[in-house]
Amino acid sequence: MFRALLIDASARVIERIETSEGIQFVRDGGFEPILERSIAAWGRSHGALPIYAAGMIGSRNGWIEMPYVDTPAHAEAIAKAVKAVKLGDGAVVVFIPGLTDKSAHPFPDVMRGEETQLVGFGLNRDMTVVLPGTHSKWARLEGGAIARFRTYVAGEVFATLSRHSFLAGVAQQPEKPDWQAFLRGLDTALDRESSLGLLSRLFCVRTGWLAGGLRPTEMIDYLSGVVIGAEFHEARSFGWFRPGDEVGIVGGADLAERYRCAAETFALKPVLDPGDAMARGCRAIADIAEKLAHGP
Amino acid sequence: MFRALLIDASARVIERIETSEGIQFVRDGGFEPILERSIAAWGRSHGALPIYAAGMIGSRNGWIEMPYVDTPAHAEAIAKAVKAVKLGDGAVVVFIPGLTDKSAHPFPDVMRGEETQLVGFGLNRDMTVVLPGTHSKWARLEGGAIARFRTYVAGEVFATLSRHSFLAGVAQQPEKPDWQAFLRGLDTALDRESSLGLLSRLFCVRTGWLAGGLRPTEMIDYLSGVVIGAEFHEARSFGWFRPGDEVGIVGGADLAERYRCAAETFALKPVLDPGDAMARGCRAIADIAEKLAHGP
Repeated sequence: MFRALLIDASARVIERIETSEGIQFVRDGGFEPILERSIAAWGRSHGALPIYAAGMIGSRNGWIEMPYVDTPAHAEAIAKAVKAVKLGDGAVVVFIPGLTDKSAHPFPDVMRGEETQLVGFGLNRDMTVVLPGTHSKWARLEGGAIARFRTYVAGEVFATLSRHSFLAGVAQQPEKPDWQAFLRGLDTALDRESSLGLLSRLFCVRTGWLAGGLRPTEMIDYLSGVVIGAEFHEARSFGWFRPGDEVGIVGGADLAERYRCAAETFALKPVLDPGDAMARGCRAIADIAEKLAHGP
Repeated sequence: MFRALLIDASARVIERIETSEGIQFVRDGGFEPILERSIAAWGRSHGALPIYAAGMIGSRNGWIEMPYVDTPAHAEAIAKAVKAVKLGDGAVVVFIPGLTDKSAHPFPDVMRGEETQLVGFGLNRDMTVVLPGTHSKWARLEGGAIARFRTYVAGEVFATLSRHSFLAGVAQQPEKPDWQAFLRGLDTALDRESSLGLLSRLFCVRTGWLAGGLRPTEMIDYLSGVVIGAEFHEARSFGWFRPGDEVGIVGGADLAERYRCAAETFALKPVLDPGDAMARGCRAIADIAEKLAHGP
């Protein structure tokens, strides 16, 4: 997915572009022409614009491979590691690095893009924050830094199973989200037996249908609840939260609402980001980088 | 998958047929012509043969929907519930019912086919038995019966993720199984942190590659180890076994070997079925059904 946001000096989003031209569809390193073509209209109406790039565009399969900054990471450490790339038309793209948490076993964990969203959310609160997605991140903010984080492959397990598993051919995509079915799926994470693990819990989606307890149009949202419930269950076992804690949620509207429900199911107090944390994070990191470059 | 075994009176397999014509590819209930065509040659060389059908062919999407027999289930209860269907050419197909375990939450669990394999394995030992597959079954044999069982969606999670996830495009299928990579994946289930749940453990397959700790040709077997390790971890939490226990393993050669390794990793004593438990199970159930029909 290629996403571009046109923002003003206070990080308010003025326009947004979203296309399917994610890095996996770009051949032979042809990133520059895609970027130039995509935002050409913005240049015509606003003149030369500073450009910030965060996320997988700075990964091994992206435009340039940015190094990872180690946790715990303050916004300053991230800003110090940005890299500027000059384009053919004179514009400059500032790449924001990802983070690595070397305390993860058996291999260091990594994020790209979420560090910028976390900076946008604000690092000034000691709090656990979840960033739902294909590869959800759970991060701990402490002492003004991103202290540590872990990845949960929740979105991708949901997406691949809903498209390619025993559900395919039976389950039917509902016209709009079936929140009742989602909440029922979430509740399985509280059931003692089914909370023992995701591999056995997943089969409920099929046995529910066989037992007449789930309609085909309920199965997808029920699965979503089962997977997100499992993610929260794992997160609690890891120690990301205790009942009664506040938890930050940074994500798009539909996913944020699902995670808000899950947080309440697990007796948490959800603190929702107002949206466009990425824009605020880019702006904040750019400001710090500029100050660092020009001195106090 | 359509599978047929030609067996002798002592359940030895003489010939086998395996085609892709599983129930999902049969249109408008056209099961009979496929069966007749597939085994026509056996009829010509051996005359009229008794035919037994077990598995998904007796499911809601199959030829006829067989009822489920409740656990705990002795072989006699299974044999009592078989149903004979007469074909156009005079042959008779005897359908073997599946089992349901109503102690499962939130919906009763089900199996079709594995009950026959368990009868073939032998119900005369008090033991936990795992039947690896797309939907692995863990079953407890007690007092000559299948006492209870649960399904773990292990094979399907492995298959869908290896084909459709973040692995696709990076991971390369090795020419033959990479047992070292598999064992390393299994070991993650013993690591305190990564044993907390599958959703976070899965991401190791990617971070391992990023960190230079996994080659593209190692990723698939490593994933296999991670998933099967998670299955054993869940099974232990459920109470299916304790270290030092014997555990039966009933499955095809490659999978049985993977589960044998996993059993040893979890300090279990694996008891491998010699193969073709399905054939022995059909034969045993048919013998009992015949005795029941004709009296003592």
